[in-house]
Amino acid sequence: MQHLRHHNKNFDIAVLTTGDELLNGELADTNTGTIAASLANYGYKLRCSLSVPDQEKEIEAALRYLTEHVKVVIVTGGLGSTGDDLTARAAARATGQQLAINELALEMVHSWFRKRNRAMEPSNERQALLPLGAQPLPNRIGTAPGFRLQKDGCELFFLPGVPNEMQAMFEQSVLPALKELHPPAPARQQRNFKLFGLPEPKIDSMIPYRQLPEGVDVAFALDYPLVLVKLRADGDDAAQKLDRAEAILQPLLGDHIMARDEETPEGNVGKLLSNANLSLSLAESCTGGLVASLFTSQPGASAFLERCAVTYADSAKQDWLQVPLPLLQQHGAVSEQCARAMAIGLRHATGTDLALAITGIAGPDGGTAEKPVGTVFIALASQEGVHVKRYQFNGERSKVQRMSAFMALEWLRRFALRLQN
Amino acid sequence: MQHLRHHNKNFDIAVLTTGDELLNGELADTNTGTIAASLANYGYKLRCSLSVPDQEKEIEAALRYLTEHVKVVIVTGGLGSTGDDLTARAAARATGQQLAINELALEMVHSWFRKRNRAMEPSNERQALLPLGAQPLPNRIGTAPGFRLQKDGCELFFLPGVPNEMQAMFEQSVLPALKELHPPAPARQQRNFKLFGLPEPKIDSMIPYRQLPEGVDVAFALDYPLVLVKLRADGDDAAQKLDRAEAILQPLLGDHIMARDEETPEGNVGKLLSNANLSLSLAESCTGGLVASLFTSQPGASAFLERCAVTYADSAKQDWLQVPLPLLQQHGAVSEQCARAMAIGLRHATGTDLALAITGIAGPDGGTAEKPVGTVFIALASQEGVHVKRYQFNGERSKVQRMSAFMALEWLRRFALRLQN
Repeated sequence: MQHLRHHNKNFDIAVLTTGDELLNGELADTNTGTIAASLANYGYKLRCSLSVPDQEKEIEAALRYLTEHVKVVIVTGGLGSTGDDLTARAAARATGQQLAINELALEMVHSWFRKRNRAMEPSNERQALLPLGAQPLPNRIGTAPGFRLQKDGCELFFLPGVPNEMQAMFEQSVLPALKELHPPAPARQQRNFKLFGLPEPKIDSMIPYRQLPEGVDVAFALDYPLVLVKLRADGDDAAQKLDRAEAILQPLLGDHIMARDEETPEGNVGKLLSNANLSLSLAESCTGGLVASLFTSQPGASAFLERCAVTYADSAKQDWLQVPLPLLQQHGAVSEQCARAMAIGLRHATGTDLALAITGIAGPDGGTAEKPVGTVFIALASQEGVHVKRYQFNGERSKVQRMSAFMALEWLRRFALRLQN
Repeated sequence: MQHLRHHNKNFDIAVLTTGDELLNGELADTNTGTIAASLANYGYKLRCSLSVPDQEKEIEAALRYLTEHVKVVIVTGGLGSTGDDLTARAAARATGQQLAINELALEMVHSWFRKRNRAMEPSNERQALLPLGAQPLPNRIGTAPGFRLQKDGCELFFLPGVPNEMQAMFEQSVLPALKELHPPAPARQQRNFKLFGLPEPKIDSMIPYRQLPEGVDVAFALDYPLVLVKLRADGDDAAQKLDRAEAILQPLLGDHIMARDEETPEGNVGKLLSNANLSLSLAESCTGGLVASLFTSQPGASAFLERCAVTYADSAKQDWLQVPLPLLQQHGAVSEQCARAMAIGLRHATGTDLALAITGIAGPDGGTAEKPVGTVFIALASQEGVHVKRYQFNGERSKVQRMSAFMALEWLRRFALRLQN
């Protein structure tokens, strides 16, 4: 952090998140990531992020430290109406200002309640207690106004901790102010590839680093079960460099790339199915609706997804999927035979082009020597017939469920791609 | 942060997470939260958390800063085999040590590959390059060993960034070391309540703060659509104080508490249904399997969940739920009539005690003046008959979906509770 001193010519930005819940493990901080992503879009860089508890002295100390080292501090949290909301007081102490009712902020709070025909709680008035000299920032969504302050050439923005309120205020008030303070640079350019089916060291060994254009960085991240490969370059010719790097990597890794940049695997598979005019039905047992839920988290899923049966009970497999009882009795619900029968029965019942079935043991219980936890069968029925495969996935329940769901997406992707070619 | 100086008698612990992806918005940091929660279980407090990019100098500067101010630093990330994994080098510089192949660490990497009968990539050898004097920490899950170092009375632990590897190594190596360094204190005690159906200021206004025992703190957090209310107390009589506070709050808020502490609403509703011997089937349209996916993320869902139909297409509503075509034509799939017919048809098809149906417009498209985005109908069929209600939820697609799913859980909770009484 002392290293920051050497960079004070840059337009350095820091995020300070406040809240006991961020440091005692109750809640994960998402605000830092949201702010960071938005800043990156305009070529601004986040220099560091810091989290401190809901203690006035800790917030004050963090503010003092950061204002000495960066040009802009964006603070989230502690603006609410309850007793643990101490940020305004800490800001007043850190900037040597008194705390007073800010009339503009008070009017913002009043107007929020008026517009919604709701009664204002007395505690909401506290939200207008701001350091003298602060400019209130409107909150379109919640009751707590934000505010802006200056100290020793550092600009401080105070936003609520609730993610959607924070984000709306950041876009409405902070971004325009940043653009005035420091014109946005051409952003560092980046391409992201989301790969399925190869471990990170294997991917690393497949990348011909020496052939990549100079100035192209490669970085890795994991979003189980996907490995993210990120190419980055700076400068005016960044796009061309990345194009060249991509042309080199595409033949080597392209087969495993499920999505790029802002795309999601589920969104892309959905588009492939829609474009190929393929209708889909799903039968999910151990994944319990996860594949359907992934698909339907995207707008437009109704263009290809006809329906999904989460068939936990054997009776559901018999009724909706026409799996014969003797088959269930002989082979069990987690078997190649059952997966095949589920896919065939589902396709028969629905008349969709594709019918995909998943049955398995997600754990933690239900495993046997022959079929341990992580045993999963996937079956896909189409006019070409039925394909079934047994997998053995590792890890706890949620990992087995996610791996099964993404493997199902991968099957559908490959089917649709094969049709295209 | 300068405030840390005043606390140097305490056993202060800091977390340093490294990774460009944490500061450019690509990936949210979950490691800080995991470590914080685990520390809290043993009465250790996380003093602050810091994130810096994958730059050797930034990591080095952060390490220098933190080692001056706290007793223990837990670092995650940058131990992989790829070029952006620079933590060991930064650690060597920050502690003034040379980097060398650590034989014990190398043997750990080799043995990982041997056990799995997999070929080792040459880049994996880099993972054994550690500062002189470092003690390697075994990694049961991945290839990268962690390590432990001392500097000027500060203990540093370096763990991988991949969450499950980090967590396993934290439990296996870091926690036992912490207990040796500083006996765990009686933890600060905490009770969490997860409330549904009341906004935060309303809850705040309902809490009789003056009646609560002295020393009991109240804090709020939001996990949409739930509001978390947290009671905390220190000292030997913490549990008794919290018991008394809970006894005061229970009659006021109890009706809205869906879960406590580590419980989840979906887990609790599942248990209520299981204990009441109620079988359940679901028909999800706009939530696309989210309710089923919530239930089945918990082990033991098969005890009550018979099946779920994600009926996106009208044909699915006709086949599986026996919704008459004329009804769909006359009222549309998003209508009170359709929700009622779905629940009745589902219960008839499945024979379960309860059949719950959700149909609505999650958006962003599909809204009309009469039925705007956010219009959702929920219907519950039981032997008592059918209950249907229309809702108007706010926000983007994912919020409408989550609110609908939790409202469905709430209906099931209230039904099961009413049976109990």
